[in-house]
Amino acid sequence: MRYELYYWPSIQGRGEFVRLTLEEAGADYVDVATQSGPRGGVPALLRFLDGRSIQHPPFAPPFLKAGRLVIGQTANILLYLGERHGLAPETESGRLWIHQLQLTMADLVQEVHDTHHPISTNFYYEDQRMEARRRAHDFVRTRIPKYLGYFEKILARGRKSTSYLGGPSLSYADLSLFQLVEGLRYAFPRAMARIERKCRHAIDLHDRIAARPRIAAYLASDRRPPFNEEGIFRHYRELDV
Amino acid sequence: MRYELYYWPSIQGRGEFVRLTLEEAGADYVDVATQSGPRGGVPALLRFLDGRSIQHPPFAPPFLKAGRLVIGQTANILLYLGERHGLAPETESGRLWIHQLQLTMADLVQEVHDTHHPISTNFYYEDQRMEARRRAHDFVRTRIPKYLGYFEKILARGRKSTSYLGGPSLSYADLSLFQLVEGLRYAFPRAMARIERKCRHAIDLHDRIAARPRIAAYLASDRRPPFNEEGIFRHYRELDV
Repeated sequence: MRYELYYWPSIQGRGEFVRLTLEEAGADYVDVATQSGPRGGVPALLRFLDGRSIQHPPFAPPFLKAGRLVIGQTANILLYLGERHGLAPETESGRLWIHQLQLTMADLVQEVHDTHHPISTNFYYEDQRMEARRRAHDFVRTRIPKYLGYFEKILARGRKSTSYLGGPSLSYADLSLFQLVEGLRYAFPRAMARIERKCRHAIDLHDRIAARPRIAAYLASDRRPPFNEEGIFRHYRELDV
Repeated sequence: MRYELYYWPSIQGRGEFVRLTLEEAGADYVDVATQSGPRGGVPALLRFLDGRSIQHPPFAPPFLKAGRLVIGQTANILLYLGERHGLAPETESGRLWIHQLQLTMADLVQEVHDTHHPISTNFYYEDQRMEARRRAHDFVRTRIPKYLGYFEKILARGRKSTSYLGGPSLSYADLSLFQLVEGLRYAFPRAMARIERKCRHAIDLHDRIAARPRIAAYLASDRRPPFNEEGIFRHYRELDV
């Protein structure tokens, strides 16, 4: 079965968490909106959101078509993929834990988004710049350390260089933590240089993920969109304190 | 087995979504932080967040202790409870769909929260009042209609007065939609009076949930905390336009 991923082309955004899991799984998939032709592009994605003829219409991208299933919400897609591709624990307890961590990361992703759009996604960044400054400064000083400190605490229980968030085995949550570190470094390089010093285990995990053959090949490919100021992680110098 | 729910006492907040599911399930549970004595109160909750001796420490309340399991993140708790208490579909496809809807509601809950705290939870409402006004006005005009319109569209496929979000059977997502309508009415009564006219199916579902014997008994009990200006849904007149 070939999966169809539907997400905005040319940004990493929330879709990137799904792409990383598909890539690490070695899954057969097509990133529909990046394809040309009558069945590709953004129109193909919008048809699902319109939802008239779809049993389970998603509220927003990303969503994944897996045979007849259409699955929305990033963490929900990963819940599904993780079980199928050995990227989640076997036990119920382990699966709930990994999903819980993914949902906590989803909260962080929303907070990252709101640093540059604290008022509304309906307004340009330039129209909420003052508010963004205020929100981002608090985010950098209190929220990044709190979230990364939480994941660090979990990882610090195991041995650096061999342990993962779920214990001895890789899961989709580890791939997501890699992406969070990547994104935070892009958006807040000055702050992260400072914060990373207290998150040695998390950074070690990030580096191990980056070195995995399939992830390394993906990162070097043109399937990985570059970070830019259209996505979730945006670099605005005045927000990085 | 007696479940232990850990959430801030005296507010509905995110914990209320879990309480409603536990109540509808007729589950045996204790709301730990509302209990007096050495094993109750907020200190009992904080011990878990400190997390030194806990295998899977939650990032934040609510979390549920189910035997030896400690499960965090509202939607994750409902995923667990829904399967065990017949409040989720039997099929994988149905379960993913209900979870997807719950996660979409979780996004809405976060947006509700940020109407009164658009800059940071570290500041009082009074210290972000101007920003709150701007955010709330956009939220009321564009986001409530978008979210409720989405759930309305799903419900409008079935027959009013008999159908649920997942089809013919009640699920935890229906209980959550009930709570969203309750909360939005409390926080934004003027806006909701206007918006509800376009959401007849959603309001009908809300009314059917309210009339269910166990839910009605719960709502009339002192186990249901009242809405107030400490929770997620807060009524500030200037935000309700």
